[in-house]
Amino acid sequence: MRFLLTNDDGIYAKGLASLYQELSRDAECLVVAPEIEQSAVGHAITIFRPLMVREARKNGNALGYAVAGTPADCVKLGIRELSGGPVDLVVSGINRGANVGINVLYSGTVSAATEAVILGVPSLAISLDSHKDADYTYAARFARKMAAFILRHSWKDIAVNVNIPALPEGEIKGVVVVKQGRARLLENFEKRVDPRDNTYYWLAGETHLAADESPDSDASALRQGYITVTPIYYDLTRYDVLKELGDKVKTDMESLF
Amino acid sequence: MRFLLTNDDGIYAKGLASLYQELSRDAECLVVAPEIEQSAVGHAITIFRPLMVREARKNGNALGYAVAGTPADCVKLGIRELSGGPVDLVVSGINRGANVGINVLYSGTVSAATEAVILGVPSLAISLDSHKDADYTYAARFARKMAAFILRHSWKDIAVNVNIPALPEGEIKGVVVVKQGRARLLENFEKRVDPRDNTYYWLAGETHLAADESPDSDASALRQGYITVTPIYYDLTRYDVLKELGDKVKTDMESLF
Repeated sequence: MRFLLTNDDGIYAKGLASLYQELSRDAECLVVAPEIEQSAVGHAITIFRPLMVREARKNGNALGYAVAGTPADCVKLGIRELSGGPVDLVVSGINRGANVGINVLYSGTVSAATEAVILGVPSLAISLDSHKDADYTYAARFARKMAAFILRHSWKDIAVNVNIPALPEGEIKGVVVVKQGRARLLENFEKRVDPRDNTYYWLAGETHLAADESPDSDASALRQGYITVTPIYYDLTRYDVLKELGDKVKTDMESLF
Repeated sequence: MRFLLTNDDGIYAKGLASLYQELSRDAECLVVAPEIEQSAVGHAITIFRPLMVREARKNGNALGYAVAGTPADCVKLGIRELSGGPVDLVVSGINRGANVGINVLYSGTVSAATEAVILGVPSLAISLDSHKDADYTYAARFARKMAAFILRHSWKDIAVNVNIPALPEGEIKGVVVVKQGRARLLENFEKRVDPRDNTYYWLAGETHLAADESPDSDASALRQGYITVTPIYYDLTRYDVLKELGDKVKTDMESLF
């Protein structure tokens, strides 16, 4: 078995090291991760410049390939060029901070998993709900169990997005399968002036979730102390309005075409 | 009425100028667009560095605000800071090249529209299926009609993704509402060696769509000469497997938790 491991916190991140330690018990693990932190890059890919790749080491040990690109770049390059054979599973994480609600769209960690599915490889994104330098041990153990679960059931065409509460193991309430919610960060911009009197803006205040959250969503379940599991993929179609929009376009066709 | 206009080809792009010319007949149009081309940045946002903003001009005329950031940054900043009042509609485009199938995920143009919906503003992304320096006149006229359509029906919580075939007006077959398909670009990497003998990779061959395409998808309909209209939003949940995954997790709970 061959797993491809990546993240968006960069190749030297502690969460990735914990993931490697656990998953390499079951599979050959190839690490292809961003050279530097890529949080909030979403599903960006690099097309207008080349991707520099180097073999990264830490304390004399090979870590894997460091790519001067995004998490989605790492997955494309890992699967297409660097893996040396078929990849059975892509695992992305362990992210520092939860990826729930609308943040899933901004997340490099989750986008890496989505990219894997686009390329036909099942995947797992895993995040720990803590921005502090937390202990990834439990999350890594859960990732190993969830990886085995995904492979055992031969899931095709889904990325599994997992979030782990930052609680002592004994206080975690269970595992629930929930939808991606609509929770979003409350953002504002700080307006500043540079040394040459030019105005600039800096996105700030992204730490609190908006409260408009249904109880069966990832954000709610995570807040209540559950491990959340959400199947996602790459289709943004709003199916629930597809027919209504179609009918209205037909009715209004004369004004449109 | 106040519209916010953006794109991913950059503030000086011809497609944006055509859009401005048509839409400013109906509304006050504020342009907030990337300083430089941002194709394939997906839903990336800028959080680790400030956003420089300047008022751009061309031939002495004010064009709007040029932002050294992504399309999603432009929408956030435009709505939150620069608009000077409520925005009724965000329009993103006219993109040089179609945004159908899996490309919707990589598209800065579409991500700008999705960001608007996240912020509670209806939106329209519009793309012309040509990478040459095409004529945007018809696409801009259609954008004006579709903007009126969206506002007339008070659509909430959807971004409307529109693709226009690169055909003479008389050869366009009609307007259809279709889902986002699974068409993807056939990609490969070119492996090269730099002047210092380092290996690098460049994403290439992204011009042909894979053929695995259902007939009611955006890519198929566009190829057949139709204008495609797809309602999208920001939820990646794969609802069709939510229950099955939930059942399997419950069955396997002992091995997971």
